Amino acid sequence: MKAGGAAKCLTLRVTEPVEPEHHAVAAVESRTITLEGHLLDSGLINRALDLIVEGGGSFQVLNFNLGEQRQSTSAAEIKVSAPSHDVMEKIMAQLIDVGAVTLPQEVCDNPLELVIKDGVAPDDFYVTTIYPTEVRVNCEWVRVQNQRMDGAIVVSTTAGEPVAACKLLRDLKVGDRVVVGVEGIRTVRKAEARDQRGTQEFGFMGAGVSSERRVELVVEQIAWELRKIRDQGGKVAVVAGPVVIHTGGGDHLSHLIREGYVQALLGGNAIAVHDIEQALMGTSLGMDMKRGVSVRGGHRHHLKAINTVRRCGSIRDAVEQGVLTSGIFYECVRHTVPFSLAGSIRDDGPLPDTRMDLLAAQAEYAHLIEGADLILMLSSMLHSIGVGNMTPAGVKLVCVDINPAVVTKLSDRGSVESVGVVTDVGLFLSLLVQQLSRLTSRYHAEASAMAR
Amino acid sequence: MKAGGAAKCLTLRVTEPVEPEHHAVAAVESRTITLEGHLLDSGLINRALDLIVEGGGSFQVLNFNLGEQRQSTSAAEIKVSAPSHDVMEKIMAQLIDVGAVTLPQEVCDNPLELVIKDGVAPDDFYVTTIYPTEVRVNCEWVRVQNQRMDGAIVVSTTAGEPVAACKLLRDLKVGDRVVVGVEGIRTVRKAEARDQRGTQEFGFMGAGVSSERRVELVVEQIAWELRKIRDQGGKVAVVAGPVVIHTGGGDHLSHLIREGYVQALLGGNAIAVHDIEQALMGTSLGMDMKRGVSVRGGHRHHLKAINTVRRCGSIRDAVEQGVLTSGIFYECVRHTVPFSLAGSIRDDGPLPDTRMDLLAAQAEYAHLIEGADLILMLSSMLHSIGVGNMTPAGVKLVCVDINPAVVTKLSDRGSVESVGVVTDVGLFLSLLVQQLSRLTSRYHAEASAMAR
Amino acid sequence: MKAGGAAKCLTLRVTEPVEPEHHAVAAVESRTITLEGHLLDSGLINRALDLIVEGGGSFQVLNFNLGEQRQSTSAAEIKVSAPSHDVMEKIMAQLIDVGAVTLPQEVCDNPLELVIKDGVAPDDFYVTTIYPTEVRVNCEWVRVQNQRMDGAIVVSTTAGEPVAACKLLRDLKVGDRVVVGVEGIRTVRKAEARDQRGTQEFGFMGAGVSSERRVELVVEQIAWELRKIRDQGGKVAVVAGPVVIHTGGGDHLSHLIREGYVQALLGGNAIAVHDIEQALMGTSLGMDMKRGVSVRGGHRHHLKAINTVRRCGSIRDAVEQGVLTSGIFYECVRHTVPFSLAGSIRDDGPLPDTRMDLLAAQAEYAHLIEGADLILMLSSMLHSIGVGNMTPAGVKLVCVDINPAVVTKLSDRGSVESVGVVTDVGLFLSLLVQQLSRLTSRYHAEASAMAR
Amino acid sequence: MKAGGAAKCLTLRVTEPVEPEHHAVAAVESRTITLEGHLLDSGLINRALDLIVEGGGSFQVLNFNLGEQRQSTSAAEIKVSAPSHDVMEKIMAQLIDVGAVTLPQEVCDNPLELVIKDGVAPDDFYVTTIYPTEVRVNCEWVRVQNQRMDGAIVVSTTAGEPVAACKLLRDLKVGDRVVVGVEGIRTVRKAEARDQRGTQEFGFMGAGVSSERRVELVVEQIAWELRKIRDQGGKVAVVAGPVVIHTGGGDHLSHLIREGYVQALLGGNAIAVHDIEQALMGTSLGMDMKRGVSVRGGHRHHLKAINTVRRCGSIRDAVEQGVLTSGIFYECVRHTVPFSLAGSIRDDGPLPDTRMDLLAAQAEYAHLIEGADLILMLSSMLHSIGVGNMTPAGVKLVCVDINPAVVTKLSDRGSVESVGVVTDVGLFLSLLVQQLSRLTSRYHAEASAMAR
Repeated sequence: MKAGGAAKCLTLRVTEPVEPEHHAVAAVESRTITLEGHLLDSGLINRALDLIVEGGGSFQVLNFNLGEQRQSTSAAEIKVSAPSHDVMEKIMAQLIDVGAVTLPQEVCDNPLELVIKDGVAPDDFYVTTIYPTEVRVNCEWVRVQNQRMDGAIVVSTTAGEPVAACKLLRDLKVGDRVVVGVEGIRTVRKAEARDQRGTQEFGFMGAGVSSERRVELVVEQIAWELRKIRDQGGKVAVVAGPVVIHTGGGDHLSHLIREGYVQALLGGNAIAVHDIEQALMGTSLGMDMKRGVSVRGGHRHHLKAINTVRRCGSIRDAVEQGVLTSGIFYECVRHTVPFSLAGSIRDDGPLPDTRMDLLAAQAEYAHLIEGADLILMLSSMLHSIGVGNMTPAGVKLVCVDINPAVVTKLSDRGSVESVGVVTDVGLFLSLLVQQLSRLTSRYHAEASAMAR
Repeated sequence: MKAGGAAKCLTLRVTEPVEPEHHAVAAVESRTITLEGHLLDSGLINRALDLIVEGGGSFQVLNFNLGEQRQSTSAAEIKVSAPSHDVMEKIMAQLIDVGAVTLPQEVCDNPLELVIKDGVAPDDFYVTTIYPTEVRVNCEWVRVQNQRMDGAIVVSTTAGEPVAACKLLRDLKVGDRVVVGVEGIRTVRKAEARDQRGTQEFGFMGAGVSSERRVELVVEQIAWELRKIRDQGGKVAVVAGPVVIHTGGGDHLSHLIREGYVQALLGGNAIAVHDIEQALMGTSLGMDMKRGVSVRGGHRHHLKAINTVRRCGSIRDAVEQGVLTSGIFYECVRHTVPFSLAGSIRDDGPLPDTRMDLLAAQAEYAHLIEGADLILMLSSMLHSIGVGNMTPAGVKLVCVDINPAVVTKLSDRGSVESVGVVTDVGLFLSLLVQQLSRLTSRYHAEASAMAR
Repeated sequence: MKAGGAAKCLTLRVTEPVEPEHHAVAAVESRTITLEGHLLDSGLINRALDLIVEGGGSFQVLNFNLGEQRQSTSAAEIKVSAPSHDVMEKIMAQLIDVGAVTLPQEVCDNPLELVIKDGVAPDDFYVTTIYPTEVRVNCEWVRVQNQRMDGAIVVSTTAGEPVAACKLLRDLKVGDRVVVGVEGIRTVRKAEARDQRGTQEFGFMGAGVSSERRVELVVEQIAWELRKIRDQGGKVAVVAGPVVIHTGGGDHLSHLIREGYVQALLGGNAIAVHDIEQALMGTSLGMDMKRGVSVRGGHRHHLKAINTVRRCGSIRDAVEQGVLTSGIFYECVRHTVPFSLAGSIRDDGPLPDTRMDLLAAQAEYAHLIEGADLILMLSSMLHSIGVGNMTPAGVKLVCVDINPAVVTKLSDRGSVESVGVVTDVGLFLSLLVQQLSRLTSRYHAEASAMAR
Repeated sequence: MKAGGAAKCLTLRVTEPVEPEHHAVAAVESRTITLEGHLLDSGLINRALDLIVEGGGSFQVLNFNLGEQRQSTSAAEIKVSAPSHDVMEKIMAQLIDVGAVTLPQEVCDNPLELVIKDGVAPDDFYVTTIYPTEVRVNCEWVRVQNQRMDGAIVVSTTAGEPVAACKLLRDLKVGDRVVVGVEGIRTVRKAEARDQRGTQEFGFMGAGVSSERRVELVVEQIAWELRKIRDQGGKVAVVAGPVVIHTGGGDHLSHLIREGYVQALLGGNAIAVHDIEQALMGTSLGMDMKRGVSVRGGHRHHLKAINTVRRCGSIRDAVEQGVLTSGIFYECVRHTVPFSLAGSIRDDGPLPDTRMDLLAAQAEYAHLIEGADLILMLSSMLHSIGVGNMTPAGVKLVCVDINPAVVTKLSDRGSVESVGVVTDVGLFLSLLVQQLSRLTSRYHAEASAMAR
């Protein structure tokens, strides 16, 4: 084993594989699983062995190929034994969640059960995670579509081809065939993606959440990322709360939209109300945004803003009628950036655009983040958690909030791609716009230098 | 002027009332207002004078009766002059909000305007506050019904009698007559209620939000208050978030419901899911609540709990079918304490009982807090703000959260009746149940002593 | 009474001054006090009346001159009666603290008592506040020197003139004559200063502490203030913690020192250690400040930095020997800005400059803030509280921290001149430097425009 | 490899050990290290391999014995190569910190350098960690005494025997022989201690810091631990801040001292002042602790308390003179529990017992925590960090604070024995006393049952 050089795997040979003798009951069932990935680095192998023993089973390591370089992956083959089928099933379910793979030859079809009541899954349904998942159908691995957490997997046939897809409980219909048990399921942890990334843009940011580090550096990295995504025609979704407006970030977010850095905007009633209040009356929650002082009678402004938009019909109507002429949502309309406003129990009004039917709101949200490369979560815990629930692994998340607890909650999803920034969101956006401008002028300077 | 003794009011006589000379434009309009209340104590009079001058008007103090004792109220009569009708209107609107009263003889009917589009108020509609409000109709003061903030006032006639009521913008119908302008409006600041209360139960608690004070004392006071309300057949509404369950407060809140201290429960999907998860599987978000350890595979428990209730049909059905046999919501069903679960964008599932239509949810919430004497807000910012928006002045609010910022936000509504407690909600409930038990045993001891 | 016009005071004449009848015990003592200031606005008068009644006394309002404009001050003459000398003393002590003045003719000399043990005050010594204070000596009001809170007042004679000065308990010497009781003491609330300020620079900032407002505006105001103080040859003291370095604020603070915006720097061991660590090794607590990544073995850097300075002899020595060539403390040495490092129980090393004798440290701190116009407190609760204790009213305080609780604690001293900013201190300093640069270029532009 | 059964180690045999070819420069130096411990579980091996490669070296795994059970330890022998001696040294220093061991036969004596200036270490001195450390002297491993972090190791000879001990920089004397380089150093990670502990008392608590878990369970575990330590004649040190008094925890902490659960108390001036203020006047920072209300004039109480103790001479004197008759410090004096009060820049007074000379304070602190089994840190970040710096690995730490950031900071020392509790400290102590009482009655019940 050495650093660098051709990839010759080291093999751990089991000198004395012995049947477990310490269980009174005989192992009535055994199965062989494969573990692949950064087994040592991530502690994955030990977690798997723990799961087996704590779950009531025993194990033998049949084979262990140690990756030759620290970036390369290792692989282990482990024989799991259990005293009963039930115990085995439970252990397997957990092993799959940590990324273990049962050997494919064992199962040709994952067990399926029929839905017998709309919106209710079979008892033993497999609960999905954020990780890419595959199920065995007709002796082949089929990738699950619409991956998201806390769903069920429905298997159907389209044009003779097997299709597997995530479905929310409430969307299940009588007759749907739902995956139960764990015989033929595997989740894929994208180690590749991580390696590729290497020490690049998002590399250092995994350093955890702290209010005691240099935000300027993090912002610089995020600016690079945004620029790269825009240049490649990628997709950035922004989730934002009203604090963006209160802290003076409205102009900066408007700028980002105008400059093409935002492809979808998600929020609630409040951010739209205060953005429009600022556009129409110059205040946010009754505070004058130019002078920073409370305006007499200003607490009524947000309701006047709502009433004005209601009279127009919608935010788009207000823009088209020339009533709304600036602000975040004005820019969205002008630059055809789609937005979705999810209602909440605390909403006044609401604006005509606010979806008070949350099933519709969740559907709209899910649609807007489809295919996003990066999601920027700006001081809105509620909507950000909502978005997080729908987002599969692999999408970069940037969470900005002045409360460290919120940032921790949002960015802690066991996913390497999430970055937490504890800071004032107004200053964050101000700085982000500055950094993007610098990138642009540098870019232009280089471009014209090359042209000469 | 003296402390104690018969109430002989001191009169401030204006030695030289002069017309304002410092405005270039002549005062085209003037109106006389009355201020009553703890004018000195609350700084009310100065705030009113500020409003007038900053709004572009001028004033003369015509009469000033200083309350003789510090508890008694003072009264001032002030003549307001303004250079235009518009300026006068704006000043008056603000004076009304701080509790000033225009002299009734001036206006016989408050101006009204017709709604010409459903859900849209006339431009200049009066935005309601949490304070009891009265409007002039047929030369009489009519109390506004369903008082809440951020509504409009609709005046109608029922059985020949004038009726005024708060309506949300979205509930306005074409033809509704809505109060505009501020000619004949007054808000009542219940100084009486405050005096009555004096230095009693809620007296000390207004001392502001701090994590550095003795929670045990605050809890003792709240226990007294809960006990008194129960004894008098009053109403307590509880707003609670899932942290109640995570921190081990579930049993304690169940106890309060069983003992009759709770008349309504408001929350979201999460508290019900985790309460039921704990009842069915012994975990909350997959944490074993007895041992405090994370259970392998426990992150799936909440979804299994949701699926189980969905199969039953509803929470009530789950109780009646013997599936759900303990917990907060079990107790609610058993003791016919009504509850309402408002959906949010982050909800998984949801439970069949969770209202994903927020207009319905807001209506249900408003119905449940009607007539409440005290509202206990337990670690749920979102739902608590929702409830706060609907709650008129005069209802006692107790807000418990471990985050001082949340407590400040919730308890800062310019209302003397709100108390903030910065602490762990699990320990808070544990202590509250203990204190209530002590009150009860003391009560029994006294009762049997008297019986002898 | 009118807004504007010549200042004709309105007089409240007491129609029926009656002796209090509601006290069983006769009033054995009475004294007349004067209240001046924004009596109505500040609720001062009611607070005073409350104090009297709650303290067990009674009162008569003899005279009440209401200020004619909202900016002008009112004056009240109140006769206080008490059933015993002790009660009267206690009431008076409290009245003095809120700013009441006993009529000077009553007392010609404030009672004094001798110190009979070093470092111990007489039992009944008057505890000083942050407000300017005067005591009666030889029938005259003598202003107390070295005003600070929690001290005693020592009266002595210098060149035949009476001198009164604040002394800490520990500095009292046998034979010192210490003010006891409250007969002839008055505190001055600088209403003037406040009026002058009016709606100027620091006007809006009193709006309380919140993480939900526009920091950019606050910073702009602070920049103006700093610029004005520098132009007028004033004094700014900065209190700073190590978070300034961790968040990348070191360069910005260095810039402020270089540009002459800082006249004294106060901190602890940690900020100096990490500033020097960054200057010598490019890391702060082992984090690379250019790349934002943790450096292998970097946790040892701070100790190496300490050892290096210890070898040189002191920070100044390290600069003069060419070892330390950049950073905050380098700039202090180069621009002869004095600094003081107060030790704490948590300090490693420490640096040779760190005062581990806290009596010496407190003396040095007190010396450095003498005459400061503004104190900028940057993310260092401990040292900022220390400074706050020594700072008399009238000095502007700006407190910056990302934790709202810290900001509230620091800026809540009942003083209008204190401003709290909840934000990331690194971004705050970055923005402050930007704003100051803009002011400068604007200034230059204007200057050259005028020159033409 | 199997779970359970006799310990037959699996051996990973290196099939193709090859010299690294990817470094242009030849490896001029190579050394073989041993890694032992939960290599897989803790990711230790990968961290070590990372260190080598990132540091510029390369490696070969010579031998890898995989622990047979998940509790048992693994061992790896790794050959490290580096292009220069300097690179090798740097890599080795880091490997030692993660617990790697260079093979003993290589080095017979660790290099030493003489101190040539008091208080200054040689340039390349080895900086100590909290982990038990051994150095090679005369071809033997010698355990370092007074282990603490951020010190230097001084080797001397006592009675012919080699002695190695930690010394702070400031305590170094000319002529001291200080360990430099890393040739013969190893740190011991007490895996044994951890295994032993298994799933016992402190097992679950490592679950991280959160305000959303059940504090009651944590308190129960801590109560068990305290009880066990007392029964075994162990030592508990308490570090406490004034918030303990403000939140009503004073009585509870007094109870713990009386009952023998506390063997040393560490704090600052403030906790003693407020404890004594409460004992003498019933207030804490002027708040009445019985009624929870602010007492008029109460802000002076703490200074009166200080003055009173100064007159007596010391806290002990105040107790012996009958002046101080209750409270935490009264109990300490009565039950001869030693205490130490470290001064800080913010201290008023101070009390005669407060050490304003911090070198003396640090020495006293270090002395008091010597041999402690558990340290309870109660709402005092400053003093707790101070204590943490002096505490070697292996001592259990319990950190209680209502601010999650403080708890994280204190309990995050890479040590399995530290537990963070986010809650109100007053309620925490109240509950702890209750739990201890329950343990006692249960114990008595069992004891009398056995006696029968």
